[in-house]
Amino acid sequence: MPQRDVINIGLLGFGVVGSGALQILERERESLANAAGCRLEVKRVADIDWQRPRPIHVPPEKRTTDALEVVRDPEISIVIEAIGGVKPALDYVLEAIANGKSVVTSNKEMMAKEGRQVMEAAAAKGVDICFEGAVGGGIPIIRPLKESLAGAGLRRVLGIVNGTTNYILTQMQQHGREFGDALAEAQQKGYAEPDPTSDVEGFDAAYKLAILASIAFNSRVNLESVYHEGITRIGAADMAYAQELGYVIKLLAIGADTEDGLELRVHPTLVPRDHPLASVADVFNAVFIEGDAVGEVMFYGRGAGSLPTGSAVVGDVVDVARNIRNGATGRVPCTCFEQKRAKNIEEVVGKYYLRLQVADRPGVLASIASVFGEESVSIASVVQKKTTGDRAEIVWITHDVKEHAMQKSLQRIRSLPVVVEVSNLIRVLAA
Amino acid sequence: MPQRDVINIGLLGFGVVGSGALQILERERESLANAAGCRLEVKRVADIDWQRPRPIHVPPEKRTTDALEVVRDPEISIVIEAIGGVKPALDYVLEAIANGKSVVTSNKEMMAKEGRQVMEAAAAKGVDICFEGAVGGGIPIIRPLKESLAGAGLRRVLGIVNGTTNYILTQMQQHGREFGDALAEAQQKGYAEPDPTSDVEGFDAAYKLAILASIAFNSRVNLESVYHEGITRIGAADMAYAQELGYVIKLLAIGADTEDGLELRVHPTLVPRDHPLASVADVFNAVFIEGDAVGEVMFYGRGAGSLPTGSAVVGDVVDVARNIRNGATGRVPCTCFEQKRAKNIEEVVGKYYLRLQVADRPGVLASIASVFGEESVSIASVVQKKTTGDRAEIVWITHDVKEHAMQKSLQRIRSLPVVVEVSNLIRVLAA
Repeated sequence: MPQRDVINIGLLGFGVVGSGALQILERERESLANAAGCRLEVKRVADIDWQRPRPIHVPPEKRTTDALEVVRDPEISIVIEAIGGVKPALDYVLEAIANGKSVVTSNKEMMAKEGRQVMEAAAAKGVDICFEGAVGGGIPIIRPLKESLAGAGLRRVLGIVNGTTNYILTQMQQHGREFGDALAEAQQKGYAEPDPTSDVEGFDAAYKLAILASIAFNSRVNLESVYHEGITRIGAADMAYAQELGYVIKLLAIGADTEDGLELRVHPTLVPRDHPLASVADVFNAVFIEGDAVGEVMFYGRGAGSLPTGSAVVGDVVDVARNIRNGATGRVPCTCFEQKRAKNIEEVVGKYYLRLQVADRPGVLASIASVFGEESVSIASVVQKKTTGDRAEIVWITHDVKEHAMQKSLQRIRSLPVVVEVSNLIRVLAA
Repeated sequence: MPQRDVINIGLLGFGVVGSGALQILERERESLANAAGCRLEVKRVADIDWQRPRPIHVPPEKRTTDALEVVRDPEISIVIEAIGGVKPALDYVLEAIANGKSVVTSNKEMMAKEGRQVMEAAAAKGVDICFEGAVGGGIPIIRPLKESLAGAGLRRVLGIVNGTTNYILTQMQQHGREFGDALAEAQQKGYAEPDPTSDVEGFDAAYKLAILASIAFNSRVNLESVYHEGITRIGAADMAYAQELGYVIKLLAIGADTEDGLELRVHPTLVPRDHPLASVADVFNAVFIEGDAVGEVMFYGRGAGSLPTGSAVVGDVVDVARNIRNGATGRVPCTCFEQKRAKNIEEVVGKYYLRLQVADRPGVLASIASVFGEESVSIASVVQKKTTGDRAEIVWITHDVKEHAMQKSLQRIRSLPVVVEVSNLIRVLAA
């Protein structure tokens, strides 16, 4: 076992996550040395812009603008990748691995899109690749899924994994705001990017679901297999109806391991008010897991931010350091041992919430109900309300039905002369 | 690196946890072999009673009534201890370790009382000792605390770690039951033992807090330093007042790392209704963590039961197997690197709920309030209600005050002629 007094770390990217990790490495220096069994030294920090103000100082001799200097430094054993995005982060990560370094990253996009390549490269070199910070910020999720829950018999993973959209939906729910207003406020508070597409359209959550499901179900999930739909079409009216019917609306990432394949989808979802995920508010994240053996388990906390995500990165660094000191890097392999097919969204069975604007005259309810009947869509509840003038609004909640049948019904309903508008179709969380 | 096709496991104790672990090892055989990198075979099972019906069959040639046969078997590398209690479990665990075997246990009492001895023995032999199942059943808590949250800067740990008392309190809260009735129902449902002392008096929660705090704060906690108080004196009236004041009552295990020492206490606690722990109901457990870097993190799930706890045990077994295959047992050392003093409960600062029966006449409120004033106990709110005849009930909530000052006030209040009875003093969770 190689005994070492110090393990040198290289940091790529000195933004939100990188500076958070560095702060923690500095201020918890002693306890981390105890935990790792040796000193953890950040030897080099690479960033293209050294002019921006940061919460922590890096001595000039440690700074570089060339990431290759870091990934090629023979004295560095662990590289923290905190650049984000696929390119050029992936190139640096692969070169670091090729040079025998273990890598810690919080890069969800890279791991979701290029996880296979990164994992295979690490396995070939016998080094560690850790990415706890890629999902749920500082909340321990990846490692518990991969290690503690190895015997849990995981069947379903439900996640509120995007803080921006959860903040927006919480604002809409608690204050009756419309989406646009809530988004503007989130942007003002720094919870949403100037271009909010990745968050509000569900891309970010889809990355995280691909990662979570790959680990939970031991089968590599291709990002293309993840259906995703954002929250931009959720209105204050939907929120109000959901509330009236005993639900809240959340952007859920849902992965399920079923007999005929994996279900992988991100979409707004009506969650029963007494479900533990229903009370996960504001920017908080949570991952709710169901397993044959373990029953229900939930992980909850701050899903983003400099120090929370930095905490996850540092936890990974300590783990890698322990492996290095024990000559045991690569001890937890990629766990995608199986190849499971992914279902198409059309095959997925679930309940639906449907809000329609219709002409307010006799027989309208019956004509829509008869379409549902003909398509074998069974109705759990229906609420009809007079709105303005000669219009009425009808909200339906169905029993379980295949997405395909629901979409077919919707197409037919849309073409009924009495139907003025299909306002929204939202999926309902199944028990 | 020693490559092995199979790792043999010995199981001590074939009760609730042991049979759960065995069931999972059998039914998840293939995926566990993938995860561990080799087959995991249960070679011997020791129990003193082979007559009881079990949910899983053990072939006669694997059975023994002599635990020593297991811990001395040279072909066995991992011993699962599922006997419970300190003696004789501790002796077998120490002998297994002395024989170079790694040990997985869910024995909270043994780890709380004899953890130091067990950890030191394992360190001396370079083997693993894992005990994820000792706290929170199948919920991953120990390993995340020790590994993922190594850089989290943990300051406080709040746990609902006893399912029996949480079930009883939930029944009292939701149905207005008295403690005795709720206990009887819990016993009938098998959630409480015929002798419920360990649960309802807080011993079980104290064991778990000693373990959690030792890991969270990197300092060995002696069980004697943990103040504990049970739930037997909580009445339906307290539940109703708590509700009226915006709280629920939970048995909390509270550990805090403060400037002048560790706070370690288990007692009924008024938890604000909007705190994530407030909605942890029935037999569910949760551990809520606050850290400088990580912010707030909560782990939630089934805190007991054959398969959930078995799942935790099996997760540990896979981890140990990975270490064995990599020649890296002992890679995560005991993390009690520091020696922090434990505060006495008298030193602890907090808020209090006090319910009194008093004579219903003018000046009573003032005479009690003046005692509080003289003892510098500041009052946050007070509710007075007429009860029967010439009696009234007063409920006080204080601001922060040292336990010592609160107890002194209470002593003086008790001796006031107008005070008929001190019905209850319950601590309130501080933000």
